[in-house]
Amino acid sequence: MLNVYLSGEIHTDWREQITEGAKGLAVTFNSPVTDHAASDDCGVAILGSEDNKYWHDHKGAMVNAIRTRKGIADADVVVVRFGEKYKQWNAAFDAGYAAALGKSLIILQQPDHDHALKEVDAAALAVARDPAQVVEILRYVLDGSLPA
Amino acid sequence: MLNVYLSGEIHTDWREQITEGAKGLAVTFNSPVTDHAASDDCGVAILGSEDNKYWHDHKGAMVNAIRTRKGIADADVVVVRFGEKYKQWNAAFDAGYAAALGKSLIILQQPDHDHALKEVDAAALAVARDPAQVVEILRYVLDGSLPA
Amino acid sequence: MLNVYLSGEIHTDWREQITEGAKGLAVTFNSPVTDHAASDDCGVAILGSEDNKYWHDHKGAMVNAIRTRKGIADADVVVVRFGEKYKQWNAAFDAGYAAALGKSLIILQQPDHDHALKEVDAAALAVARDPAQVVEILRYVLDGSLPA
Amino acid sequence: MLNVYLSGEIHTDWREQITEGAKGLAVTFNSPVTDHAASDDCGVAILGSEDNKYWHDHKGAMVNAIRTRKGIADADVVVVRFGEKYKQWNAAFDAGYAAALGKSLIILQQPDHDHALKEVDAAALAVARDPAQVVEILRYVLDGSLPA
Amino acid sequence: MLNVYLSGEIHTDWREQITEGAKGLAVTFNSPVTDHAASDDCGVAILGSEDNKYWHDHKGAMVNAIRTRKGIADADVVVVRFGEKYKQWNAAFDAGYAAALGKSLIILQQPDHDHALKEVDAAALAVARDPAQVVEILRYVLDGSLPA
Amino acid sequence: MLNVYLSGEIHTDWREQITEGAKGLAVTFNSPVTDHAASDDCGVAILGSEDNKYWHDHKGAMVNAIRTRKGIADADVVVVRFGEKYKQWNAAFDAGYAAALGKSLIILQQPDHDHALKEVDAAALAVARDPAQVVEILRYVLDGSLPA
Amino acid sequence: MLNVYLSGEIHTDWREQITEGAKGLAVTFNSPVTDHAASDDCGVAILGSEDNKYWHDHKGAMVNAIRTRKGIADADVVVVRFGEKYKQWNAAFDAGYAAALGKSLIILQQPDHDHALKEVDAAALAVARDPAQVVEILRYVLDGSLPA
Amino acid sequence: MLNVYLSGEIHTDWREQITEGAKGLAVTFNSPVTDHAASDDCGVAILGSEDNKYWHDHKGAMVNAIRTRKGIADADVVVVRFGEKYKQWNAAFDAGYAAALGKSLIILQQPDHDHALKEVDAAALAVARDPAQVVEILRYVLDGSLPA
Repeated sequence: MLNVYLSGEIHTDWREQITEGAKGLAVTFNSPVTDHAASDDCGVAILGSEDNKYWHDHKGAMVNAIRTRKGIADADVVVVRFGEKYKQWNAAFDAGYAAALGKSLIILQQPDHDHALKEVDAAALAVARDPAQVVEILRYVLDGSLPA
Repeated sequence: MLNVYLSGEIHTDWREQITEGAKGLAVTFNSPVTDHAASDDCGVAILGSEDNKYWHDHKGAMVNAIRTRKGIADADVVVVRFGEKYKQWNAAFDAGYAAALGKSLIILQQPDHDHALKEVDAAALAVARDPAQVVEILRYVLDGSLPA
Repeated sequence: MLNVYLSGEIHTDWREQITEGAKGLAVTFNSPVTDHAASDDCGVAILGSEDNKYWHDHKGAMVNAIRTRKGIADADVVVVRFGEKYKQWNAAFDAGYAAALGKSLIILQQPDHDHALKEVDAAALAVARDPAQVVEILRYVLDGSLPA
Repeated sequence: MLNVYLSGEIHTDWREQITEGAKGLAVTFNSPVTDHAASDDCGVAILGSEDNKYWHDHKGAMVNAIRTRKGIADADVVVVRFGEKYKQWNAAFDAGYAAALGKSLIILQQPDHDHALKEVDAAALAVARDPAQVVEILRYVLDGSLPA
Repeated sequence: MLNVYLSGEIHTDWREQITEGAKGLAVTFNSPVTDHAASDDCGVAILGSEDNKYWHDHKGAMVNAIRTRKGIADADVVVVRFGEKYKQWNAAFDAGYAAALGKSLIILQQPDHDHALKEVDAAALAVARDPAQVVEILRYVLDGSLPA
Repeated sequence: MLNVYLSGEIHTDWREQITEGAKGLAVTFNSPVTDHAASDDCGVAILGSEDNKYWHDHKGAMVNAIRTRKGIADADVVVVRFGEKYKQWNAAFDAGYAAALGKSLIILQQPDHDHALKEVDAAALAVARDPAQVVEILRYVLDGSLPA
Repeated sequence: MLNVYLSGEIHTDWREQITEGAKGLAVTFNSPVTDHAASDDCGVAILGSEDNKYWHDHKGAMVNAIRTRKGIADADVVVVRFGEKYKQWNAAFDAGYAAALGKSLIILQQPDHDHALKEVDAAALAVARDPAQVVEILRYVLDGSLPA
Repeated sequence: MLNVYLSGEIHTDWREQITEGAKGLAVTFNSPVTDHAASDDCGVAILGSEDNKYWHDHKGAMVNAIRTRKGIADADVVVVRFGEKYKQWNAAFDAGYAAALGKSLIILQQPDHDHALKEVDAAALAVARDPAQVVEILRYVLDGSLPA
């Protein structure tokens, strides 16, 4: 049984593609909360509002960290997806966090980000270009079979 | 003696401001190679050229990792600076790496990045806005004196 | 599945409120022995009486530590409740112990203790004011849903 | 050379008594910032004021944690002093933190706190009643000589 | 569920007394091979004879270590029994090994060995005099009930 | 339940002999992908071809490392088989990796390699000459019974 | 520079023989307090008398543990000497403690204890018969020279 | 200051080339005993002869491990050289051991071994072809200067 954490970009359906593609494999998937609004507001929605936007964000980020830390700590493999837009510093942060814990890291990104991601890629065991490749890696790792 | 690693943005003189400001304090500073061209090309310059740009970058990033890992592993405090431009995913990666190792993290950034950096800031013990504040933190941590 | 250890105050029903509120969630709860008399006397009741009250207490505290250490070591999340009365140094000790092990820490306390608990709160990922908020955090961490 | 961290109560001169008494021994002492006002205000004095008292305290506690963590991490022996007054939850937190890291713990306290501190004492290698006893322990640990 | 390793003396039925007494409790027990002859000869019986008695013993001790290391590594609680006879250095070795791994240690011994075992006892959370006390500790740790 | 990783030589049926022989024992076996061609080509088959043979090999070795690392990390016992032919540096690498993680190591090799393997053997708890001996070790470790 | 801890028997001059023999080598030696009376009474001499002999011994053993733990934690090599007399369970405990921390272990003992010490010896990198052999090991480890 | 361990092949002067080339750099070098005969015989020369060649080798390998373990444990960077001849399993073992400890690994080898070393290379941060390249990596890591 392989425990896989799917970190990073939350605006496309890459997680669903991987989960769907890996059906039948002995994999458990975890991920952050991918509802953007809930993820931004969870701190104040549960623990009370803040006048200052910085602390509003801070309370939410701390609550999300409870889920993220467990997800990465429990994982055998951490997949980090970098999308086309936004700063995505939390994705790179998760990659560094996972690398320091010795997790097997797979980066999912487009070639135009290769130079900007070279330090992150250097800590990874695979750099994939689409979700199907991630599924193929998981299948190979679990049962040794390669794509036809 | 406090060992401080200065990670991140390499286009302004923030490292010099901190080093200069901390003169007389019992601090040792380390940092990545900040010569951009050398940092990009170190792999092929030493170990031989690559036709493929991806592997050109990869060889360099791996050699740089020898320095970065030691710098972070030896540090008591890791300061990560996010500048105005570029993706800066290596900075966020270093922050995640340092956080997972339990290092005390100080983030140096402008307020317009607060929302994008909230997960990174949530792992930090201080978020500073300019190099002088970092110096003041180091001074306070070492001898307990506050700015006048 | 989230493993949660409920540490601290034993004179109100906050543990029951959390356990009851979290029904249906994939959470396992553990806690210290909350029968005050049993907790005080377990050492001498099992291993033989002591003339000296200090060693009477000591033997009991050591036996209780077998349970506490396992509870914290196995936990993903440690909730520490500070009540209105008593010194509650064991609660703060558990918080420090959990923090050093990198556990996700939730502190449950009233605002009038904010200043006295600031160092403890600074190591936590959430500071809750009532047991219902702890339940809401657990629910959000597990399934991403926020309170209506 | 023994590295000793002196944690806890900041209103009496117990640290000076120990430091003075240990003169000539191969001991290095570290401690938190013991200037109460500086310790409370360091966060806002350096990083900017906060309207909300909770975040005022929080910023200070986080900056102090940079010093505390290093002090405990570097220590062979952590001495935690509980005084007559105040909640002193940070002292108990430090004791738990140090215990989880496997540091040798010496608790310095009066007998009327024995029952309230029994869990903390149970994690310690010595419970001393006055600073002179701590000095005698350090002397014995270093050169094997006992008080005349 | 508590995982308990029963180390030490193999000439009396103390393991059976504890296992029997703990029936119905959520405890899993492990122990070394307690057949003395098998334990002495396992190395040469499986891997081939040795002319030299030292290497005969050595091969057996190494094979036994596969079982012992796993037993201690998996344990929450390690009970070490010192009997009336023999050197029993392997028992004391197991106690030290378990202590260094932070396992909860229970020593089972008669009072006439108190002085000789003082360093070992100082690393333990309980010193029991008979197997029934060990059962009572396990029961209390699991469900909080004390002997009538 | 014992988790055993079978590393090394992939040209004979030693894994099948051990798995078959251990039927009925509480053992779970894991191993690398033993299809030589798949193991060599997995990187380029999944992630795209490389002109340079070095990077062709590199991509495959990295993907295989995802499986190998998990296999060793999860194992209680690592068996490393050295065969008659080839360099087999990956086998020796796995042995060193497992030793540094404190895994119980069993080396399976012929006597003519004794001198060349002396450093590897020195880190092992058993040196076996045929697969049947490995099965006998596992049986003894699990239930204490020796070969008739 | 090699840091060596000399544990065990305190009734002969083996420590002096090693220290003397190793003069000129880059070795630092540490050891427990070897004054038997001081070691037995240090707890009550510093922290106050106890009516009960068990707690008298306990207080001393705990104070001695401050020195022992640091000595072993700082060591590269731990030498444990078993003498002709006494139970010497503290020596075996130190050996187990050092082994669990991954220290290089040298056992110094006479052949008539070989069988009783086989589990301890199995965790060691060398079993020496006299102090001169320990010196020769240290010399070889440091500069590669063998006895003439 | 960078601590570098030079492991592997002992028949050419590659260590001297690196040490000589790195003169003036802030590097400390360590290595195994490279006198082949001394390395083979150290065990019996110090601790007494063995009739059986296996145990002769074993005693030596164990004594050498005292030096090797410290060398790797203390190192920031481990350089492993694979030569043209011999099995060199100890070199690959050291590489695996260093990799599991998270050391920065540099492999020094000729291209004809690329395929056989692919798993080892995959764990390295650099694969160098001659000692001069290792020196250039160390120089770059320390002061950021590249070869002219």
